Amino acid sequence: MATPEEFLEQTREQGLKELEDFLRIPSISSQPEHANDVRRAAGHLAEQYERVGLENAQVIETGGHPVVYADWLKAPNKPTVLLYGHYDVQPVDPLDLWTSPPFEPIRQDGQLLGRGSSDDKGQIALHWQAIQARLNSTGELPLNLKVIAEGEEEIASPHFEAFVDANAERLKTTYCVVSDTSMVAKGFPAITYALRGLIYVELRVEVASTDMHSGLLGGVAPNPAQALAEILVRLKDAAGHVLVPGFYDGVRPLSEEERRQFARVPFDEAALKKTYGLTALHGESGFTPTERNWARPTLEVNGIWGGYQGPGAKTIIPAWTAAKISCRLVPDQDPNSVTQALRDYIDEVAPKTVRVSLAELSGHGDPWITPIDHPLIKAARSALHRVYGTEPALIRSGGSIGAVEVMARRLGAPCLLVGFVLPDSLAHAPNERLDLDSFYLGRKAALQLWEEIAGIGD
Amino acid sequence: MATPEEFLEQTREQGLKELEDFLRIPSISSQPEHANDVRRAAGHLAEQYERVGLENAQVIETGGHPVVYADWLKAPNKPTVLLYGHYDVQPVDPLDLWTSPPFEPIRQDGQLLGRGSSDDKGQIALHWQAIQARLNSTGELPLNLKVIAEGEEEIASPHFEAFVDANAERLKTTYCVVSDTSMVAKGFPAITYALRGLIYVELRVEVASTDMHSGLLGGVAPNPAQALAEILVRLKDAAGHVLVPGFYDGVRPLSEEERRQFARVPFDEAALKKTYGLTALHGESGFTPTERNWARPTLEVNGIWGGYQGPGAKTIIPAWTAAKISCRLVPDQDPNSVTQALRDYIDEVAPKTVRVSLAELSGHGDPWITPIDHPLIKAARSALHRVYGTEPALIRSGGSIGAVEVMARRLGAPCLLVGFVLPDSLAHAPNERLDLDSFYLGRKAALQLWEEIAGIGD
Repeated sequence: MATPEEFLEQTREQGLKELEDFLRIPSISSQPEHANDVRRAAGHLAEQYERVGLENAQVIETGGHPVVYADWLKAPNKPTVLLYGHYDVQPVDPLDLWTSPPFEPIRQDGQLLGRGSSDDKGQIALHWQAIQARLNSTGELPLNLKVIAEGEEEIASPHFEAFVDANAERLKTTYCVVSDTSMVAKGFPAITYALRGLIYVELRVEVASTDMHSGLLGGVAPNPAQALAEILVRLKDAAGHVLVPGFYDGVRPLSEEERRQFARVPFDEAALKKTYGLTALHGESGFTPTERNWARPTLEVNGIWGGYQGPGAKTIIPAWTAAKISCRLVPDQDPNSVTQALRDYIDEVAPKTVRVSLAELSGHGDPWITPIDHPLIKAARSALHRVYGTEPALIRSGGSIGAVEVMARRLGAPCLLVGFVLPDSLAHAPNERLDLDSFYLGRKAALQLWEEIAGIGD
Repeated sequence: MATPEEFLEQTREQGLKELEDFLRIPSISSQPEHANDVRRAAGHLAEQYERVGLENAQVIETGGHPVVYADWLKAPNKPTVLLYGHYDVQPVDPLDLWTSPPFEPIRQDGQLLGRGSSDDKGQIALHWQAIQARLNSTGELPLNLKVIAEGEEEIASPHFEAFVDANAERLKTTYCVVSDTSMVAKGFPAITYALRGLIYVELRVEVASTDMHSGLLGGVAPNPAQALAEILVRLKDAAGHVLVPGFYDGVRPLSEEERRQFARVPFDEAALKKTYGLTALHGESGFTPTERNWARPTLEVNGIWGGYQGPGAKTIIPAWTAAKISCRLVPDQDPNSVTQALRDYIDEVAPKTVRVSLAELSGHGDPWITPIDHPLIKAARSALHRVYGTEPALIRSGGSIGAVEVMARRLGAPCLLVGFVLPDSLAHAPNERLDLDSFYLGRKAALQLWEEIAGIGD
């Protein structure tokens, strides 16, 4: 009987063919004309889960595209892992920039080209193949596994929280693992252990019931664009430090080990400036750009508007102006407290000549973290070190991932994010690709991950 | 033989009928479907000028709606006055708020209701009727008179400067008189002797070539809305005093007499707040609201925009933001110097993380003033005092009137603005009206004005 590793070696071509079949289904979640394709992909995936030996494989309805579920729960006294991925993909336009049809995968120079190859069907496939290898070789998994694949990740998971709520008992787990991120570089794996949260508000600064003639009222009436500017410069100093009292309450300081880990990840300032056309970077002193983005809360104006914006000149003093403002939050800031602090402070600093109002917009999310000394992180570090021969990077992300926040909050289980594809895989862009070496090594890493997590507490 | 005053007394009904005929022509300059009506009004007006005894009455083509011209130049050794009015009118929507059809004038409670009754056909008519009275009674005018009526005042006089240039010789004059303003109140006439000028720029603050993800770049990239706010608060302090070095260079200080004159004009702060829905007034300390508006330069943001402005939340850092900024200028500020000072200062104070650019928009205009001790002003004061039995107000306006600026600059003649209608005549609004007492008294005042101006230098 082959070991699981031997099985994986012997099924490289078969594994790739399985993925290619999956990629041929154009499961674009954002385009109604592909709704049937999304459903077809869900059915196809449930069949794969069943084929490889998972049980209870099923397509579960939500208010939108369905979630695919399967499990294997025959490891009493062992932890349970809920493994998350998504089977929906991004649209493919602009189509003329693709060198080959996006849903006809081809192999080229050690890469598999096609929409979804890395994000996220390739990662889903490597997991089912690792599971198959273990079950085929040993007849069992080292722990209990519940696998879910969402069909709406690329459209911001509008029904995921309701799905988790409705299936809370079924999804009950010891840990969550999400495979939808990338490595630092080829051969350099990464574990993401924290994400930032978000609050989002709209500020309106009103001075008058109507736009005013700047000749007849200039020098007499207040100007709401000027007042908005006066408020904005009170929110954040020129270096980017937020001035709202209480804003930083609860911010968990970075440990020396975290700083050391962050510093292991190359930060290419010149490349970043070139990509975005930036003249200079900007942010709080005392922190590296990576530390500021991953582990410091930020406040950003996302949009401003008011008064005349058309061509040429119109001599008005606007009746009102507005700004969209959002804050990225880090552990252990409380979104409600930060929102209240922002509201109180704006009320306090706004010029007395204007009327301000603050509306909370949807999209609030808690920051999330699994401390790096948690056994789950330690197990993953060990597994990746073993397979890749190098210490994985322990990183955070400055962004927010809705599904992670929902699972952490609703299921109350420690979570980690680990992905097996390369950062230059062109996810969301034309010519999305999957590095085949990384795919094959990822199958082994997935296998090893379950072994190590199974050993937690032994 | 009747005196001119007696002639006017005897022709009250006739004068009103003449005006009503003029008002029935819907000469809305902004609406292409009324282009023929505008032309018809011009022809009708030229006929009136000819009928009352003016000479060389003609409709002069421009790049748009024509100008009506007529003159009487038989007073050698006497000054020449160029009298300006406009025969075009504002649109009438919302039509359902009119209590009677806008182009079917009716008399009601001592008022004549109809579009153009005060702005400006009523003022044109009272002048032709005063001229007729003088010519009919005495066979001559006391000075040389050139009358022009513009057909594009309500659309910002786009062809007026070219018209003045092309007819510079024909329009050559000693003085200009403009009748398109209103009195302070019934029985309380006003002479406007200064207007503010204008510069208008568009500021663009760019940080990146594309909008950025606020999670992935927040804490790393500069924010152009924040940078714009930082620039705006450097332009003007919280009280409204402009901080641009050199901005106030050349500002002519108000004399005690001017301040005394301004104070004679009632300023109803409560009414102004109610009209515009203002919580508070705002402006430089050390000046009354009237002084700030009429005699102090101001800097206003006319519009701001950038980033996401739609419904809900979008988590971006904008690539760029922009602002429209204009300054109202007073004598003797130089528009070019102020523009350069603004440009230099913004370059200096803009954060080094952003790229700023400043584009000048059209609409620049010089400030204009005729000093209150000028003989032209003295003559008008004397004429109005004689007719109304009260000292007229000597006022300025915070706005800019394109035609005045053009005539002052291109013809180099001292100018004054005097109008004979009431401030609550609802110009531009539904139910525009003309106070008939004021109309009849205005005919006498116009008559007297020429007598007094004719005496300048005697």
